[in-house]
Amino acid sequence: MRFATYDDGSIDGRLFVVSRDQKCAASAAFIAPSLLSALQRWRDVEAPLRRLSGDLDTGRIANAASFAPERCLAPLPRAPQWLDGSAFLNHVRLIEQAFGTPPIPDFDTIPVMYQGASDDFLGPHAEVPFVDEQDGIDFEGEFGVVVDEVAMATGAEAAAERIRLIVQINEWSLRAISAREMLRGFGVLQAKPSTSFAPVAVTPDELGEAWRNGRVAMNLHVELNGERIGSASGAEMAFSFPELIAHAARTRRLRAGTIIGSGTVSNADRAAGSSCLSEKRVIEKLDLGEANTPFLEFGDRVVMEARFPDGRPGPFGRINQRAVSPTPYDRQSETRNV
Amino acid sequence: MRFATYDDGSIDGRLFVVSRDQKCAASAAFIAPSLLSALQRWRDVEAPLRRLSGDLDTGRIANAASFAPERCLAPLPRAPQWLDGSAFLNHVRLIEQAFGTPPIPDFDTIPVMYQGASDDFLGPHAEVPFVDEQDGIDFEGEFGVVVDEVAMATGAEAAAERIRLIVQINEWSLRAISAREMLRGFGVLQAKPSTSFAPVAVTPDELGEAWRNGRVAMNLHVELNGERIGSASGAEMAFSFPELIAHAARTRRLRAGTIIGSGTVSNADRAAGSSCLSEKRVIEKLDLGEANTPFLEFGDRVVMEARFPDGRPGPFGRINQRAVSPTPYDRQSETRNV
Repeated sequence: MRFATYDDGSIDGRLFVVSRDQKCAASAAFIAPSLLSALQRWRDVEAPLRRLSGDLDTGRIANAASFAPERCLAPLPRAPQWLDGSAFLNHVRLIEQAFGTPPIPDFDTIPVMYQGASDDFLGPHAEVPFVDEQDGIDFEGEFGVVVDEVAMATGAEAAAERIRLIVQINEWSLRAISAREMLRGFGVLQAKPSTSFAPVAVTPDELGEAWRNGRVAMNLHVELNGERIGSASGAEMAFSFPELIAHAARTRRLRAGTIIGSGTVSNADRAAGSSCLSEKRVIEKLDLGEANTPFLEFGDRVVMEARFPDGRPGPFGRINQRAVSPTPYDRQSETRNV
Repeated sequence: MRFATYDDGSIDGRLFVVSRDQKCAASAAFIAPSLLSALQRWRDVEAPLRRLSGDLDTGRIANAASFAPERCLAPLPRAPQWLDGSAFLNHVRLIEQAFGTPPIPDFDTIPVMYQGASDDFLGPHAEVPFVDEQDGIDFEGEFGVVVDEVAMATGAEAAAERIRLIVQINEWSLRAISAREMLRGFGVLQAKPSTSFAPVAVTPDELGEAWRNGRVAMNLHVELNGERIGSASGAEMAFSFPELIAHAARTRRLRAGTIIGSGTVSNADRAAGSSCLSEKRVIEKLDLGEANTPFLEFGDRVVMEARFPDGRPGPFGRINQRAVSPTPYDRQSETRNV
C-alpha cells in the first residue's frame, strides 16, 4: 500500500491511498481520517485499506483523482517520536577523519541516535525557512521506518514485526551549529530544524526485493540546483532498522507512528557521491586540501528521489524543496486546528 | 488558573479546572476537551476558562467534585515538544568536578538543552517502569513552562509573553546510560525514559511573587522513601525561562503546548540538599571520598512538592511515585484511542 496525506487544514491532514503507478489517489478518510489514526488502529484498518488500494489499482474507484504531490504534507505531519540514527559507518568515519575528532566510542557495536522534533514535519514541496545562511544549511538524504506500538525492551527480531511503513526523508541540518552542539554532551537541537518527507509512505511489500536484511536497498538520487550530488545505496547500513528500533525501545515504549531514521545514506564507493554537502565537503578536503562546495544559500533547490537498482523510480515520490528566508508566516504565531 | 487532566481513556485526557484551595475540580470539557486543545486555542478559551475558575472558587459550580489527584494524568499527557535545559550552574559544576570531565564549552553564556520524548508523559501517581536496576535509576526535580506558539527566532523578551503555564516535573534518568551517551555527541536517549508531572499546571499569576525574573522562586521538596533529599530553590537558575525558550526557538517554531524544563533544581548552599541522587552522590564523593547513596531499586518511592518560601504548599500538588519492574502492560503493545 502507498499512502499520502493531503493538506485539509487539520494538524494530521487527510489520508489518501495512492495507486501503484503513482497516477491516482483516493480518499481513505472513511476508513481512517489520517495516517496517524490508521497507525493507531492498524489491526482494524489494514484489511479495508488493502481493499481500497486494490480497487484503486484496478480502476474500480469512481471518485479517484490524479495524484497531486504538491498538495501533500509529510505522510505524518506530526509523529509521537522522531528518532534518527546514524547507521552509515562510511559517513561518520569520513567526518571524523576530516575534523580529526576522536572516534565515537563503540560506534561499530552500539547505534548512535538522537531525538528530533516530531511536531512540525514539512511536505515534499514546502519551502524550507532558515534564519541565517551563516548557520551552514545542509540537507541529509535518509530512509526511515514507521512503527506500530513497540513495547519497552523489545529485541530486534520482534521489532522487525512492528515495521508498518517505509519513508524517504530529508533531514535538514545546520552544520555550523551542530559542530558546536556535539561538543556539549546534550546532542543536537538548534542544529536540527524541521525535517522533510517524500510524499508517499509505503508498506514494506511495495519495495519487493529492495527491502532486505531490514534495509532499503535502493539508491537515493540527490540533486542540488539540477546537479547530481550522489546516488548512494541504503543497503550499506551498519545496523538494520530492526536493530535501530530495538536501540530506541531499550528503556521506553514507542507509540504507534514513531519514525526511526537511518542517518545520512553513504557508501564506501566514492563513485556513489554523497547524500549531504557536509560529506561532499569532507571528501573535497581530504582529496583536494580544501572544501570547495559551499553550504546552501536562500533560493537553492534540493531534489531527492529513491530509485530501484535497475533505475526505476521508487514509490516514495520526489522531495523538491527550496531553502528560503523566513516569511512573516514563519515568524508569526499561528496554530492549526486539531 | 489551575488545570488538571483526568484519565478518560483518550490520548490527551479530559480538562478540569481546580479550585485555589485544591479541594474541588470541575470539568472544563465544554470549553476545551483537553489542555492541549485549550493551549491551541488560548485566545478563544482563556476568558471562559477564567470565568469557570472564578465560579469554582466562589462555590457557584453545582457539579463540582472533590479534586482527585490519583485520577490525574500528566497535565499534558503528550506535548508537541519537550525540551529540557540544564540551567542550574551549581548542578553541572558539581558533576564536572566529581567526574573530572572538562567544563561544557560556553556553559555560562549559552544554555544547554536536549530534546526528550514528549509522547508518553506519566501522571503524578503512576508507577514508573524501568527495565533494569543496573541502569542507575535516578529522579530529577525540575520546574517547567508551557508555551503558546513561539515563532522561529523569537527573542527572550518576546518569549516571556508566550508563557502560558508553569509545571512541576520529575525527569527520570538512567545514570549508567547517560554517562556513556553523553560521550558520543548525540545526546541522551536511552538514558531518558518517560517524564512525570505533578497534577496541576498553573498560570503564572497563581505563583504571585514567587514567579519573578522568569524563574520559579519556590523550594522543591524531594523525599525518597520518606527521607528528605533536598528543598532547593528554583530562583538560582543561570538562565531564565524566557532565555531558555529563545534558545529553543532559535532555528524552529515551537507549537502551542511545547514544554521547556529548567533542568535539575540545585543551589550553591549545601543545606538545600539535592533534587537528584546523582548530585547527592557527587557531594558525598567530594566530602567523604565515596558515594554512599545508591541509585533506586524497584519499590522505592519518590515524593516531590514545591513550596512557597514561607512553607505553604505550592499549587502544583505532589508527585508521588514508585519505581517498578515493567509489567505485562508496559511490555505489550497497546494504543489508546485518540
